[in-house]
Amino acid sequence: MTGTISGKALIHALYDRPMSGQAIEERSFQLIDEEVPAHGFSPKQWVVVRRMIHTVADFGLIDAIRFSPDALEAGTGALRSGRPIYVDSSMIRSGLSLPRLRSVCSGYCEEDVVCHVADGDVAKEAKEKGLPRSLFAVRKAIPMLDRGIAVFGNAPVALMELNRLIMEEQVRPSLVVAMPVGFVHVVESKEELMTLDVPYVAVAGRRGGSTLAVSVLHALCSLASNPVSA
Amino acid sequence: MTGTISGKALIHALYDRPMSGQAIEERSFQLIDEEVPAHGFSPKQWVVVRRMIHTVADFGLIDAIRFSPDALEAGTGALRSGRPIYVDSSMIRSGLSLPRLRSVCSGYCEEDVVCHVADGDVAKEAKEKGLPRSLFAVRKAIPMLDRGIAVFGNAPVALMELNRLIMEEQVRPSLVVAMPVGFVHVVESKEELMTLDVPYVAVAGRRGGSTLAVSVLHALCSLASNPVSA
Repeated sequence: MTGTISGKALIHALYDRPMSGQAIEERSFQLIDEEVPAHGFSPKQWVVVRRMIHTVADFGLIDAIRFSPDALEAGTGALRSGRPIYVDSSMIRSGLSLPRLRSVCSGYCEEDVVCHVADGDVAKEAKEKGLPRSLFAVRKAIPMLDRGIAVFGNAPVALMELNRLIMEEQVRPSLVVAMPVGFVHVVESKEELMTLDVPYVAVAGRRGGSTLAVSVLHALCSLASNPVSA
Repeated sequence: MTGTISGKALIHALYDRPMSGQAIEERSFQLIDEEVPAHGFSPKQWVVVRRMIHTVADFGLIDAIRFSPDALEAGTGALRSGRPIYVDSSMIRSGLSLPRLRSVCSGYCEEDVVCHVADGDVAKEAKEKGLPRSLFAVRKAIPMLDRGIAVFGNAPVALMELNRLIMEEQVRPSLVVAMPVGFVHVVESKEELMTLDVPYVAVAGRRGGSTLAVSVLHALCSLASNPVSA
């Protein structure tokens, strides 16, 4: 705050000693490594967890992060194979970096990241049935969800419907990023997912969010293109 | 979890007793009202704070939320006047609901929500100068930032550059939503903003994020279209 007290804007310090966005990100990761309390994550898991902490700037999240044993291998494998990615919010779609996806599999294109929540037919069905749009959006995505990557950072109802598809209709996603957030249906939607035989990265409890879901995919992209020794 | 234990997917309970997305949101707000610890927010501020808590599902955020005394009047006034909205991430742009904005001012259109971070000229200048793109993105937005609404949920450097524009170049936004998140430049960027004579809603400390920034704008839309007695 010396900048403000002296009447000089703080940004001048950055003009005087320029740092790129990438340098700032590296410095952030270094600070997280220095400050993190003791934890039991493997080096590969830590790549994911660190980026999640970077996204919310809150170490309190650590205790809630869960990986199925096969999550990282399944997730990086699916990305390398260019599997389609179904997301439950337009924020996730716009946050996912196509260059990062392409650094893992050059075949990725915009059409491989799909969200049906804003589709007209989905909205119509939701209104008719008195149920959330996210549910019908997931149903519309069934063909791509089988062997695809499911990324949920918003709607617990979307995750609950996916759970049913796994339990009853033999849909088998390559990876489920399970991070819906909120107060209704959220805790149990994630608990149910974690009982199923599919690879997952989850945030247990009420917390989650679209930015966290994006950070998991981006961390998996780094793992897939720059392997860390486990 | 009885659903899972009995082998029946949890979603069937929702099929049996349908709830719309809106009904789920109302129930969430009710749960937040019931659980929230004592706080000193006014009824109008609470409309904003409650939506922020709904977005991250974490009451711990409450202690960090700051309003300038004129924030809500300035923010709702700016929305009613259809002021342009500059955002620091494409996730915020895609998360902001045009129907909500139009419920306050029918003149809002997609072009009124602007983000320059992905622009080619911005990327080029950032690379040349070795500084983050978010800085040059804000500079490009100077004409709209004066009297416009600034919404930052990502990049502290963007906020620091805006602070300088306010301090040195007499740029006067109608409202600043100051919620960059992270470990480098973040805390001080918000402290500096809060010393300046502009209306703001901020999250002090390291936390913040694009989804929180969106939630503030959406809450201001409800306040602007459904006044709450203060």
